[in-house]
Amino acid sequence: MRLVTRLRPQLCARPLVYSRLQRPVTVAVRSQWLSTTAIRRCSCADAANGKPEAAHPAHDHRTLGTSQELFTSSIYSPGSPLFLPNGTHVINKLISFLRAQYMQYGFREVLTPTIYKRSLWEISGHWQNYKDDMYEVTGRGASGETEGEIGEDESYGLKPMNCPGHCLLFKSQNHSYRDLPVRYADFSPLHRNEVSGSLTGLTRVRRFHQDDGHIFCRPQQIKSEIASALGFVDMAMTTFGLGPYRLVLSTRPETDYIGTLDMWDNAENQLREALNSTGREWALNEGDGAFYGPKIDIQLQDQAGKYHQLSTIQLDMNLPQRFELEYQVAEGEADYNPATPGVATPVLVHRAIFGSLERFLALLIEHHGIILTVNQDDAVVKHAQEAASRFAGFRVLQTDGSAEPPRPLSSADSTFLVDVDTSAQTLGKKIQRAKQMKYNMIFIVGPRDVTDGGVTVDVTGQMQSKTDPEAQQFQSVIRTELGENALQNPRAVKLQVDEVHPLLVQLERNFV
Amino acid sequence: MRLVTRLRPQLCARPLVYSRLQRPVTVAVRSQWLSTTAIRRCSCADAANGKPEAAHPAHDHRTLGTSQELFTSSIYSPGSPLFLPNGTHVINKLISFLRAQYMQYGFREVLTPTIYKRSLWEISGHWQNYKDDMYEVTGRGASGETEGEIGEDESYGLKPMNCPGHCLLFKSQNHSYRDLPVRYADFSPLHRNEVSGSLTGLTRVRRFHQDDGHIFCRPQQIKSEIASALGFVDMAMTTFGLGPYRLVLSTRPETDYIGTLDMWDNAENQLREALNSTGREWALNEGDGAFYGPKIDIQLQDQAGKYHQLSTIQLDMNLPQRFELEYQVAEGEADYNPATPGVATPVLVHRAIFGSLERFLALLIEHHGIILTVNQDDAVVKHAQEAASRFAGFRVLQTDGSAEPPRPLSSADSTFLVDVDTSAQTLGKKIQRAKQMKYNMIFIVGPRDVTDGGVTVDVTGQMQSKTDPEAQQFQSVIRTELGENALQNPRAVKLQVDEVHPLLVQLERNFV
Repeated sequence: MRLVTRLRPQLCARPLVYSRLQRPVTVAVRSQWLSTTAIRRCSCADAANGKPEAAHPAHDHRTLGTSQELFTSSIYSPGSPLFLPNGTHVINKLISFLRAQYMQYGFREVLTPTIYKRSLWEISGHWQNYKDDMYEVTGRGASGETEGEIGEDESYGLKPMNCPGHCLLFKSQNHSYRDLPVRYADFSPLHRNEVSGSLTGLTRVRRFHQDDGHIFCRPQQIKSEIASALGFVDMAMTTFGLGPYRLVLSTRPETDYIGTLDMWDNAENQLREALNSTGREWALNEGDGAFYGPKIDIQLQDQAGKYHQLSTIQLDMNLPQRFELEYQVAEGEADYNPATPGVATPVLVHRAIFGSLERFLALLIEHHGIILTVNQDDAVVKHAQEAASRFAGFRVLQTDGSAEPPRPLSSADSTFLVDVDTSAQTLGKKIQRAKQMKYNMIFIVGPRDVTDGGVTVDVTGQMQSKTDPEAQQFQSVIRTELGENALQNPRAVKLQVDEVHPLLVQLERNFV
Repeated sequence: MRLVTRLRPQLCARPLVYSRLQRPVTVAVRSQWLSTTAIRRCSCADAANGKPEAAHPAHDHRTLGTSQELFTSSIYSPGSPLFLPNGTHVINKLISFLRAQYMQYGFREVLTPTIYKRSLWEISGHWQNYKDDMYEVTGRGASGETEGEIGEDESYGLKPMNCPGHCLLFKSQNHSYRDLPVRYADFSPLHRNEVSGSLTGLTRVRRFHQDDGHIFCRPQQIKSEIASALGFVDMAMTTFGLGPYRLVLSTRPETDYIGTLDMWDNAENQLREALNSTGREWALNEGDGAFYGPKIDIQLQDQAGKYHQLSTIQLDMNLPQRFELEYQVAEGEADYNPATPGVATPVLVHRAIFGSLERFLALLIEHHGIILTVNQDDAVVKHAQEAASRFAGFRVLQTDGSAEPPRPLSSADSTFLVDVDTSAQTLGKKIQRAKQMKYNMIFIVGPRDVTDGGVTVDVTGQMQSKTDPEAQQFQSVIRTELGENALQNPRAVKLQVDEVHPLLVQLERNFV
């Protein structure tokens, strides 16, 4: 029931680099992330000397969150960070990546309540077993339907998980065996009332967002659903350049489990087959499953060889019973049970690919460009600003009333963030600063560009490691789009202004 | 402080049509919406006979929400609907429309906590004035920083509005007068603990989402910010084909207002100038402003000529003082105040374009196609399924292991929902059903299409009203993409499979 037990939303305690520069820094962030997700202590000199984490000022999350303008925290919302625009942008980008994949993997997103009455948490068993980690909410309760009295105050729980809500959704509709599996995804904020103590920044939080999903399927569909979930995990790992990882199967505990031995054997066999079909090695953790079903953990290996928990895929034969979920099944089908003629109980699969999105904040591939002007000549500045809006695919409205009102942008329009630096500094200084700020595309415009409608691009940032597969993919996209000789001088690739936006679209499509 | 006082999230009590058919039904929904948003009673015969709303079974929200698979409700979450995939899809689409525009209008999205300590609501004044409509939350409070004791239970409020959180965000960073205006947007769920009684469906809810925004600006920027907000409202109205609407300015109350007469005169003058610059008529509601600032209401006219509240733009000189917000300002600037050398207090503008997104659920333009097969011949079915994934821009993974794993989709890929009906019914029956289900593009494939890689489209749904500007825009896009003669027989437009996706992209871009 508790989906990701070891996946507390924690970001690395070491410097968290918010990367505007996509490839090289992605690598840097990755290795940082890999080496720190599961350790709560910093590995800097201060840590080696035994100082507590909060005493390493350079590595304090709040300092980093503020200096990189990702998030901030407040004494009014302990454990619940406030995300600034940069942090929100990255989280939204991760969500839209997942949304795009959900369509392919047959998940449909749902939007479920934040608070539910105590009686729901009693059905799910959370109130009995998890109450200490839930926030209690008091407010006017009854709607005049079947519970409570109108106007009476009732007790609610602030949701720590989405599963009971998804059970209500499943139960609200009739399901035939032909319609299964039903797969719900949900990005709702979750609250877990963790003990205070060390709450700071993103290390320990009480409110977070999961890429949460629940699959309601027939018992004989377990294998294909698990195989599909493992495929999704692999796609996400590959796209974000994460890995290597390993798979661990946890099986039925010796005692205190629900369901029959037959049910367990059948389920475990399907999990084994799904694991075998990946062609990857997997480990067995015998007897370590939950009382309500076996599970598969996906563990990421760090550079020191140590494994850390990432995704979890967990079978649940308990909640469907507690919520009395059912689907219609025809006689002759494998899941037809004469004891309950015409209806059967679905199996529930809990699964999260990334777990806490907050933790992945630093991992996202970002395309963020900057245009530097060679001088402050009016024609050059105007050319730079015009180029910026052509690259970006939109124009920021000037509120001085000088500009045309914008046309509505649709979801079919691809847009990018592009800044312009028209300051009086030397070009060398501007390039240096842009590299420090981790922009991944640095464009330069000078007087000659005004005449020929061109722009010069410095792509050295993308090419630092020539052996890296992503650097090679970058070069391949550039060559396809701009010709074989485009990269002869990567410090100064000459482009027409109108060539840039299609190039950014191609890079985005290829996740480079 | 209370942004949209009259904007209770209520959907029309009359039949709410979830439109897959975009143009004609959008019009139908519009007129329904226009005529019912502000009236709480149904206008059907049952209502005329004095029956209470809940007693008109055909018009019950829950029935409609379920039959159209938009949302459901539960006794465990009174006033807080559970959105099914179709409803969530439409709400997400509205949010992504707004997100795209936010970039152009200089708004940056933020992600803020759901609960804040009671002490925050005391600063904002909500605890004193709004407590009855807030849910109270109890849980472990202190983070070991400056308030409360570690482990001690504290009292929180579940947020009814985003403004106090945005004030915390603004306060967390230093701001120069050069950086202003700062504009935050937020789609967080909000909770208002409305009295029970008539809570049903989406008519009266306790939890909803706003397209909420807050602008922190200099006093002399009020005019341009208001003008830009009015421009945003106009763009949204035009895009969704809403209107006509009127603008109403509410000015300083006679007594019990905060701030100086000078401040009010200055602010009201800028609002007047911004209103004048729209070239639209506007009305004056003298003395009807809030104690903390003047406001502009945007009211939509229904077909009977009656006006209903939509967007609100509201000035606030109170919260910035309560939160002691400030920005740095240089001597010689108009907002430099010798009494507070170097710092000044920003003006806060609350604004929402659509108000409650839930209410707009039915308004969204949706592209949802269906492919009908002429028969159940294997080659035809295969051609239909292949065409469906080409139209959609993605392929739903077959969990039987037969298909290649999908490539990761990026945000630069345009995707559409396309269903396939390969049932054994006659083509006439299938077309009839597809029209009933409000698909906006009906594709037909038969044996001949298998040979020539083609498909036939019935676009009569889009052309029902030839005088409608959207129908004309649709025809114009079709002619541009497919040639002048494409619409000679709108019941059977012949296309190549590969022409369909680019056509859908063009229609999406043009919001038809």
